[in-house]
Formats: sequence, structure tokens, C-alpha cells
Amino acid sequence: MDYVKNPKEIEDKSMQIIYDYVKDLGLTDDEVRVVSRTVHASGDVEYAQLVRMSPGAVQKGIEALENGANIYTDVEMVRTGISKPALKIRGNEVHCLIKDENVAKMAKELGVTRSIAAMRTFGKQLEGQIVAIGNAPTALYEVLRLALEEGIKPALIIGIPVGFVGAAESKDYLMEVSPVPYITVKGNKGGSPIAASVCNALLYTDVKRNDMLFVEGKESK
Amino acid sequence: MDYVKNPKEIEDKSMQIIYDYVKDLGLTDDEVRVVSRTVHASGDVEYAQLVRMSPGAVQKGIEALENGANIYTDVEMVRTGISKPALKIRGNEVHCLIKDENVAKMAKELGVTRSIAAMRTFGKQLEGQIVAIGNAPTALYEVLRLALEEGIKPALIIGIPVGFVGAAESKDYLMEVSPVPYITVKGNKGGSPIAASVCNALLYTDVKRNDMLFVEGKESK
Repeated sequence: MDYVKNPKEIEDKSMQIIYDYVKDLGLTDDEVRVVSRTVHASGDVEYAQLVRMSPGAVQKGIEALENGANIYTDVEMVRTGISKPALKIRGNEVHCLIKDENVAKMAKELGVTRSIAAMRTFGKQLEGQIVAIGNAPTALYEVLRLALEEGIKPALIIGIPVGFVGAAESKDYLMEVSPVPYITVKGNKGGSPIAASVCNALLYTDVKRNDMLFVEGKESK
Repeated sequence: MDYVKNPKEIEDKSMQIIYDYVKDLGLTDDEVRVVSRTVHASGDVEYAQLVRMSPGAVQKGIEALENGANIYTDVEMVRTGISKPALKIRGNEVHCLIKDENVAKMAKELGVTRSIAAMRTFGKQLEGQIVAIGNAPTALYEVLRLALEEGIKPALIIGIPVGFVGAAESKDYLMEVSPVPYITVKGNKGGSPIAASVCNALLYTDVKRNDMLFVEGKESK
């Protein structure tokens, strides 16, 4: 049972291996970090071919976080997956309302999913912030409705629902109509750890932009 | 923006689509449910080819949960991904020590990962319980060491670390030496939502074994 036990060493080796799959995609260094994190979180090199980013979206996300933007998630698993140590160092917060009692009540009254009710409850708070969706297509549709119909514009939408019913369509719709920068994954794949990994890539990016921040203990997520 | 908003309907449709990928694998109905959940959680049909289960492992896990076994996870994301409503209905608990201060202290003192320290701290508590590992190969090695060297035998090891350094090897080692039933995924793929999805498949299985339990609100995970 001889195996690598040092988290920093494991991470460095992983990123070296992953680099071969992302280096020839014509991405900026910051974009490489984002795509690498999705591959790292899934153990699936196909993500290198599936991640879609609107031009400048990664840069926009990094800047928003540096300027104090918070992250709004659809489900607790995305919130849990975002590195606590990195948030602490950077000073950003993560919000999630899926378990809120008023949201549950609102969902029941309106006959919509709790994900929709949660995003609608955030409402104007989402202006200029980061939205990270890792589970519910319905949450993604609602964020787009808020942006298109009510003019509430996040700085960045990380829209990565997963699944076989509606997820791929919701992501195609995001790419088609989003009036704000987005990061997404083409097709059925995605999910909470992928959405969280994108948030972490943005959070880990050193303010000087010359290296990835290694956060001691971030393996705890 | 016309889309399916009913969670039960989305789930049923998803499982119908996934069934085509799992129906010819020679699995029992309970095993089909487990494999289907991994595909559902990842949006990745390749999981149908990658899940590995020791003979009777699924049955063993279902029985252990019915008899009141609890679930011990390596990271918070696995804990978060396990359906709270299902746990409430079934009466099982989930434990995770990764954020425990004594575990952090122990890890530092011994120069091991917090995942190892967490599993070692659980120690004898793991006897007859379900262990679910979704992140750290080091946690999986430690659980196997406890089983092989100290005779502490969980009812079932769900060992699904993810990644490019050590994860695949740790899972091969699980399949090679485990003295207790296991469920795992061959290769680099895996992660917290996959480990959680296996737990949920076991929790959702109706005690009468004739249908999957649909838990209202489990989309909240």
C-alpha cells in the first residue's frame, strides 16, 4: 500500500497529466485552468472537448470575484464543493436557498420547482454576481428569464445541469440567448462537482494571474 | 421556454432513457437501480460499463441499511449528496469527520491526509456499517487497512475516488483485496455525486424490493 499521500503533490501531478488534453485547445491560461478543473473533478478527459465559454467569460468571472462578487448556487452540493479555504482567503461568500422554508412554500403555491423559487427569491441580488448551477435545468431557465425579462444580469452564469431530460436543452438555450457571459458543458454531462470546480478554478486564480493558488486543505470539499 | 418542471416526471423519463444502457448487463433489478443512479448522477452512459460490484454487494448494502446501518463518508460532498428525505424516511444517519478539528490535528501530527485521520478515527465504529468514499484514494486505502490489518469490517465499501493520480489504482486494489462486499467504478472516473448516487439507490430501494422509492424533494441534494 505504497501511495502518494501529499495533497499538493497529487494535485500537481494531476494537473500535469490533464495539461496534455487541454494545451492545444487555443485557450488562455485562465481558461486552461477552468477546463482542467472540470477534468480533474470528473476524472473524465472528455470535458476538455465539452466545456463551452463565451468570449472573455473566465476573465469576467475572475474580475467579479476580485471585486467582491458572491456566488449563488442552485443546490447544496455546489455550495459544499466550493473550497471553504479559498473563500476565506478571497473573502467571497456562497449563497443557496434550496432548503429555505419560504422557498419551499413559494414553490408549492406557484406549482414550480424549488430551484425556480430559489432563483426567483434571489432576484435582484443576482445583479453583478456569479450564478453557479449544477443540478436543475429549471434553475438555469429561471436565471435566464430573470436576465431577459427582468433585466437582472449576473456577471457570469456557470450553467452546468446534468442529465438526460432537459439538461442539454437548457444548456443549448443558455448558449443561444444568454445576454451575459457564461461557462457551460455541451450535452448531458455536468453536475454539482463540475459547477463547483469552475468556481474553484476562478477562486484559485492568483490575483496576479500568474499562477494557480494552492489552498492547503482544499481537498476537504 | 417550455420545459418539464415536474421532478417525478423528469426522474421517470430519465430512468427510462437510462434503462436502455443497463438492461442487457445481466444485472439483478437492485443492481440495475444502482448502475442507473450512477449514470443519472453523471449524465454519462459510460458508467454502465464501468461500475464493478462484488457478488451480492448491492443486496448486502440494502439489508444493512434496512437493519439500521449508518453511512460513513470521506468528504462533505458525499454527505450532502445523500438524500435527506430518504434518510429521514429510512432512519439511517450519515457521518463525516473531514472537518473535525481533532482529525485535522491528528493528520498534522502523523503526517497523513485528513481523510486517513478521519477513517482511522471512525475505526471500530465502521464495523457492519456502509462506508462511502467519493474523493480520497487515501481514505479508501485506510479503510482497507482497517479491514485487513485490524479486522474492522464494514458491511459494504462504496469506494469511488476520482482522478488521475492514485484513484484508479486504489479502486483496483479494492477489487483485488477487499475482504468485504464492494461497489466501485473502474478507471479514473468517479467522485462524490457517484458515491452519493449509489447510497441513494440503496436507500431508495423499497423494503418490499418491488419498486424504487420516490422521495419528494430529493432533487434538493
